[in-house]
Amino acid sequence: MNTGSPVLEINEVGPRDGLQIETRMVPTEDKIAFIDALSDCGFARIEVTSFTSPKAIPALADAGAVMQGIRRRPGVIYTALVPNIRGLERALEAGVDEMNLVMSCSETHNRANLRMTRQQSFDELSQVLAAAARAGAPCNVSLSTAFGCPFDGDVQAEQVLDLAARLVDAGAGGITLCDTTGMAYPNQVGELCADAARRLPGVALTVHLHNTRGMALANAVTAWQAGITRFDAAAGGLGGCPYAPGASGNVNTEELVHMFECMGVRTGVSLESLLAILRGLSGLVGRELPMALLRAGPRLAAHPPPAWLAERFGPAGDAA
Amino acid sequence: MNTGSPVLEINEVGPRDGLQIETRMVPTEDKIAFIDALSDCGFARIEVTSFTSPKAIPALADAGAVMQGIRRRPGVIYTALVPNIRGLERALEAGVDEMNLVMSCSETHNRANLRMTRQQSFDELSQVLAAAARAGAPCNVSLSTAFGCPFDGDVQAEQVLDLAARLVDAGAGGITLCDTTGMAYPNQVGELCADAARRLPGVALTVHLHNTRGMALANAVTAWQAGITRFDAAAGGLGGCPYAPGASGNVNTEELVHMFECMGVRTGVSLESLLAILRGLSGLVGRELPMALLRAGPRLAAHPPPAWLAERFGPAGDAA
Repeated sequence: MNTGSPVLEINEVGPRDGLQIETRMVPTEDKIAFIDALSDCGFARIEVTSFTSPKAIPALADAGAVMQGIRRRPGVIYTALVPNIRGLERALEAGVDEMNLVMSCSETHNRANLRMTRQQSFDELSQVLAAAARAGAPCNVSLSTAFGCPFDGDVQAEQVLDLAARLVDAGAGGITLCDTTGMAYPNQVGELCADAARRLPGVALTVHLHNTRGMALANAVTAWQAGITRFDAAAGGLGGCPYAPGASGNVNTEELVHMFECMGVRTGVSLESLLAILRGLSGLVGRELPMALLRAGPRLAAHPPPAWLAERFGPAGDAA
Repeated sequence: MNTGSPVLEINEVGPRDGLQIETRMVPTEDKIAFIDALSDCGFARIEVTSFTSPKAIPALADAGAVMQGIRRRPGVIYTALVPNIRGLERALEAGVDEMNLVMSCSETHNRANLRMTRQQSFDELSQVLAAAARAGAPCNVSLSTAFGCPFDGDVQAEQVLDLAARLVDAGAGGITLCDTTGMAYPNQVGELCADAARRLPGVALTVHLHNTRGMALANAVTAWQAGITRFDAAAGGLGGCPYAPGASGNVNTEELVHMFECMGVRTGVSLESLLAILRGLSGLVGRELPMALLRAGPRLAAHPPPAWLAERFGPAGDAA
């Protein structure tokens, strides 16, 4: 495992997309320690924080301090969410490597989440993309509700692709197709990813999955089959969506990594290092996280046979 | 949804594979009510109980009473686990439609779970298959640890296929490839299923998945892609494996059904009826079951937008 160059690029979004919805305020130094530990796991990218207004997301009000406090490991791209020009300025000042912008594919989710119409968001992001280009900062745009909206229901693929194409024209170098509330299903994911790759040649495509209805890893497989090699994921399944009652969090990074490594697809991530971090994660956020793999261990973790077996059948050497 | 003939055959194994490991003794009349409710959901098969020695599995000591107490819905095949000739006799007497036999692909798991060597199990199952043939009773054999053993580690595909072929020669009409402790991963499942279909033409192949490491639905997708149309599943993710610490239960029937119906693959199962049953299931077994879909609702379950949206942006009619 983990020999040779990674084939996948995993973007660990737990520190931003995860911690932003936690009700427990995580101290700045604990965030920094969490991110520093993640830096040693082998991720291609880590989404560190969000340069949103502290009033909008109080949990990440310390964005600048976190960004400047972390140890920057060479080779890791440190990204942050940037909602507007002011956020871009703060992010550039703090030394963020790559900007992540966000808007929704569906109107009602955009209004509920960003308090703007999609047209207002598009105009704002266009300005940010132009300013980032002048500053030489790479930008990715995350498109929420690309596979369905909890308010508006189905979202047409054409609508997602049109919006993505307009954002690429406006300067986005990458597009993330986000299943914000876990509505995506496997053939839909495979088809939208294949269509997006055809429609947006040369654009870095990422898939962002939630496990709300158990389908996150199934969707990751069909995305991979359609040629996607970049995935967002959150350690321990941190995160969720405040507008989707009962929504669980992002796909667990450790389960995504474990599955792909089992499949022989290299992620560059050390599962062992990641599992070590997870042991302290529920304590960090003050709630039990859904960490099935941490509980069960990797698939080949050996279990001792029951003690009575040897007595009854002789030594285990007879087992073959 | 659910129009036309089902394409998949779902075998609901919760009453047997689920309840057998519960520490809380479920009263016979509650089991019967659970199975009767399942009968109205549209399953192809329901595994009702196990005609094992009451000493081996006290939770299912009431096998005969349950089998004879349920309402038999026409079109549903009622199956039961049968470990030996004595069990077969009891099952025939109780009117079981189809027998499910079981042994492991790996030696240590067979010894731990069945207290016999694989050779002893094979000899015993051969006798049961012969006796069942004389009685005209169809038999399926479930092969445990087909994708890996918690004690012996990797299990070679060739070993699984050889054992399956010998059991078919001995009279098995169907083979279930069981991922007993959730060790299967997607490309492995796709390859073993495709190999099994080539090696065992005309044999009814079923896949039995556990969600121990989050991969159950991903594995179901690759099994389906390889041509598998028969799946075991347990309502609410009932079940587990006493020899695999931390192992979660069977793939949740409702999540399997929901995923395939989203994909346009008909299961014949009414998700609505099944979700209604799930609401009482944690109470039945006295512990919280991992029911993400029940919590979140089906993907298109509508959520009302936040109340402040209309005030800020005008009526929702403007949303397009």
